[in-house]
Amino acid sequence: MSRISTHCELRYTVHTPTAFFFIVLPTQGPRQEVAEETLTLEPERPLRRESTGPGAHDFVRVLAEPGPLALRYDAVVAVNAYVPDRAPASEVDFADVPVDVIPYLQPSRFCPSDLLTRTATKAFGDMAPGFERVTGICNWVYDRLDYVAGSTGPSTTAADVLIQGAGVCRDYAHLGISLCRALGVPARYVSGYAVDLDPPDFHGFFEAYLEGDWYLFDATRMASVDGLVRIAVGRDAADVAFASFVGAATLDDKVVSTIDLDRTGPDDGTTTAAISTA
Amino acid sequence: MSRISTHCELRYTVHTPTAFFFIVLPTQGPRQEVAEETLTLEPERPLRRESTGPGAHDFVRVLAEPGPLALRYDAVVAVNAYVPDRAPASEVDFADVPVDVIPYLQPSRFCPSDLLTRTATKAFGDMAPGFERVTGICNWVYDRLDYVAGSTGPSTTAADVLIQGAGVCRDYAHLGISLCRALGVPARYVSGYAVDLDPPDFHGFFEAYLEGDWYLFDATRMASVDGLVRIAVGRDAADVAFASFVGAATLDDKVVSTIDLDRTGPDDGTTTAAISTA
Amino acid sequence: MSRISTHCELRYTVHTPTAFFFIVLPTQGPRQEVAEETLTLEPERPLRRESTGPGAHDFVRVLAEPGPLALRYDAVVAVNAYVPDRAPASEVDFADVPVDVIPYLQPSRFCPSDLLTRTATKAFGDMAPGFERVTGICNWVYDRLDYVAGSTGPSTTAADVLIQGAGVCRDYAHLGISLCRALGVPARYVSGYAVDLDPPDFHGFFEAYLEGDWYLFDATRMASVDGLVRIAVGRDAADVAFASFVGAATLDDKVVSTIDLDRTGPDDGTTTAAISTA
Amino acid sequence: MSRISTHCELRYTVHTPTAFFFIVLPTQGPRQEVAEETLTLEPERPLRRESTGPGAHDFVRVLAEPGPLALRYDAVVAVNAYVPDRAPASEVDFADVPVDVIPYLQPSRFCPSDLLTRTATKAFGDMAPGFERVTGICNWVYDRLDYVAGSTGPSTTAADVLIQGAGVCRDYAHLGISLCRALGVPARYVSGYAVDLDPPDFHGFFEAYLEGDWYLFDATRMASVDGLVRIAVGRDAADVAFASFVGAATLDDKVVSTIDLDRTGPDDGTTTAAISTA
Repeated sequence: MSRISTHCELRYTVHTPTAFFFIVLPTQGPRQEVAEETLTLEPERPLRRESTGPGAHDFVRVLAEPGPLALRYDAVVAVNAYVPDRAPASEVDFADVPVDVIPYLQPSRFCPSDLLTRTATKAFGDMAPGFERVTGICNWVYDRLDYVAGSTGPSTTAADVLIQGAGVCRDYAHLGISLCRALGVPARYVSGYAVDLDPPDFHGFFEAYLEGDWYLFDATRMASVDGLVRIAVGRDAADVAFASFVGAATLDDKVVSTIDLDRTGPDDGTTTAAISTA
Repeated sequence: MSRISTHCELRYTVHTPTAFFFIVLPTQGPRQEVAEETLTLEPERPLRRESTGPGAHDFVRVLAEPGPLALRYDAVVAVNAYVPDRAPASEVDFADVPVDVIPYLQPSRFCPSDLLTRTATKAFGDMAPGFERVTGICNWVYDRLDYVAGSTGPSTTAADVLIQGAGVCRDYAHLGISLCRALGVPARYVSGYAVDLDPPDFHGFFEAYLEGDWYLFDATRMASVDGLVRIAVGRDAADVAFASFVGAATLDDKVVSTIDLDRTGPDDGTTTAAISTA
Repeated sequence: MSRISTHCELRYTVHTPTAFFFIVLPTQGPRQEVAEETLTLEPERPLRRESTGPGAHDFVRVLAEPGPLALRYDAVVAVNAYVPDRAPASEVDFADVPVDVIPYLQPSRFCPSDLLTRTATKAFGDMAPGFERVTGICNWVYDRLDYVAGSTGPSTTAADVLIQGAGVCRDYAHLGISLCRALGVPARYVSGYAVDLDPPDFHGFFEAYLEGDWYLFDATRMASVDGLVRIAVGRDAADVAFASFVGAATLDDKVVSTIDLDRTGPDDGTTTAAISTA
Repeated sequence: MSRISTHCELRYTVHTPTAFFFIVLPTQGPRQEVAEETLTLEPERPLRRESTGPGAHDFVRVLAEPGPLALRYDAVVAVNAYVPDRAPASEVDFADVPVDVIPYLQPSRFCPSDLLTRTATKAFGDMAPGFERVTGICNWVYDRLDYVAGSTGPSTTAADVLIQGAGVCRDYAHLGISLCRALGVPARYVSGYAVDLDPPDFHGFFEAYLEGDWYLFDATRMASVDGLVRIAVGRDAADVAFASFVGAATLDDKVVSTIDLDRTGPDDGTTTAAISTA
């Protein structure tokens, strides 16, 4: 178990009355517990906090008036990274996939797994199913992609990414998910916080469904699995954007930082930075 | 209210042990009730019937052995087509969209609404929100597309369809859904049976979320709304394929027919045909 | 006839020995004559000037060493804008299209006219062939697109542009060309200088082949046709990039300006600006 | 040198007066000579034979009246397959690519080489330039694709093919061409006849420009290079379709056969078949 401190701050200029929908709060669940948290809006505005979706992530709704708006969220999260005794050697037969897991076998906006059936079968069809095979998928993705900030945009699919050979964390996850689904392995996108991410930002990774449980994978090799704090899961990044809104607003600054509170020594695990999108 | 008789028969040659997943049973719900039904497999095989997803549609799982497999399903369904007193004049503010409706605002595999924001806003941004505007979307789709059997395939998106100007029912639905979502109107795909469809087949249409309820639209103008029997809803056609399987099987024949039992006279509403895909 | 002064300056930082290929010199031809010109490289480097392709445009090859490189080109061009006595009322039958014009009937990288056959026929199939119909295409493009700097990139096709409803000059030209070809009208891309372009930059427009001659069209409505100076023609923008190179170099600044020397008065037709891509 | 007999027959039903454009005649050139040929139309119609394009291929124009139309073409072609003394070890520097070869460095409709720069560089950037590297590209294409009749259509690009992992001869050629261009090696599409092709049909392969000459490659491994008869070259398959027409006609039958007249023994090199597209 590790205790991880997470921080995010989102600063907007709001131009017209705007309805926001934020997904930045860590999930409460058996493997991670939010010990302390502070959520502030500046200026103060009524906010609604609701729980939704698979994994029951919490999101926050805000109706903002024109002017500046800042959302700040700080938490300390106890993460009990799932380290199974042994790597699960099997996948789940299609006949036994639970009904609520079936959507994660289907192609989605950024994960066109239907296009990749043959490619996935050719590359991985001879490997024994299970954890090793999904690890093989992650290695394959890692080998084929270069991590290049700005190389992809909000409409980039896993197919685009495979052709151009470059992407960022969400693209690595989308390609891994697509290949899993193409092989009949349910897979879903996870947004989160990650210790040691450089530059610090929200992170995207994925989970595959093996032997009745969801196992976490990160094809980017940018963060260790026990330093990941899960925010939300969805079919792909479209479901878990950190902020959505209807109205008119400009994101001026986004600051994300994550600290492993139990780590000591020279590499103190603190990463912090301001990414201005103004 | 009308009573509609539905029939479908799917014939496969199964090559290896194959796990099937069928979505052909009408939904049970407030607006449609399955009065009688017969489901048979030939040869007899154990089947599992489960309920899942939004609208809680029933599906059927079958583990088939090599050899022929035929699934037949007949039902009489009482359909209480929703005819509101008045057309809902408003859409639901983003701030008030229920959490379980939010996924239907997101782009999906065949409905890349994120690409169509500007096109949708240019075409419909000045229209008053509500039922009239969604009707306007249906008319726009109808004007731009030709209904051409075989013009699209299983991987065709709403963007492809708009470019090429042709499609079949699922494509009309996908384009309508994409334009709704691009305008902030939740929309979802519905598979079903339809009286008078020519050639007879399963049908695809869509629902938009207005004033707190889902309203049905069919941009193809091929069937009247009160002759539609809903099978399942999903983000797009990927979620509600009439059959999925893992294994090896060939669809030899698909027969779908739908009869409005309360209609009399020369046009007796019977449509039946065999579509061989061998 | 008008005399137009053109100026361009391209500044690079060259990182390794790099072979450049510039296409910025106005074409010499019956309708435009380069009266004076100055081409300088700083530092001085051997350059090769060759003529190629349809319309025999001149290009310039430079082998650059690491360090700064600036190419400056100034010219005064006498443009005899082709103003036919009457608008050509007919297109050329496929049976009579000259062999060297046939390539401009085929789809190209950014002009996938094969995808747009039905859309073009539906929109323009009932119009009488000829100049009026191509003008109708330009109006259609103008109505469907918003001119938005940065909305498209170097890999954007006319199909992408039509879906997203926005583009820049090259995208307007690509969509116009695609629709012409889809109707059997040969069409080609033209790069050039344009008086009054705001912001000043190289411009892209297109030509359609009617009654045995190439007629110029600009769907952006950003420049008057008699203020256009042609640099090069090709199947689409891929053929006429203002600079290509193999090696490693960074474009630091691009300055383009165009003056109509015969125009007087308060609106003096001078546009100048520096576009930094550093 | 080998003598190859080629035969093709195209049968149409013509619905309205239709202008045809056929590209089925072997090129006359230094490496292949058409010794005998017979070209017949049934019913007799005036035809125009013209020469065009790079490699100066001959094509045939026919204005057909409603009714049946059959074109038959038979030839004996002396092919002097180019077998260089040694494999060319070098590619041509960008600075030295002749002006008429430059178009084959640009992306085209079905060869979006601009998208594949990084993928090509990652896979082949460390290989020494020249014949060996292009051979490496062919092997890579062969390994990644399955040859599946019907897996692609007339609008399929090399990027689509790479994603789906399947294609036919034109797709193998398009992917090979795209990777060459992405590395700065000029490459072009060649249509032709091929001995031993199974099923017999027109064939598509490609040429790369190395050490000042065009070298032929066939990534499908379906025919030996000395059994290929070149018909036409172009940027991709869009330029060299065996038939184009404006009007209304249906292709009823296409028969292509190719015999190596100098080969004897049990495998007599005869392949013949009728492919009905009715």
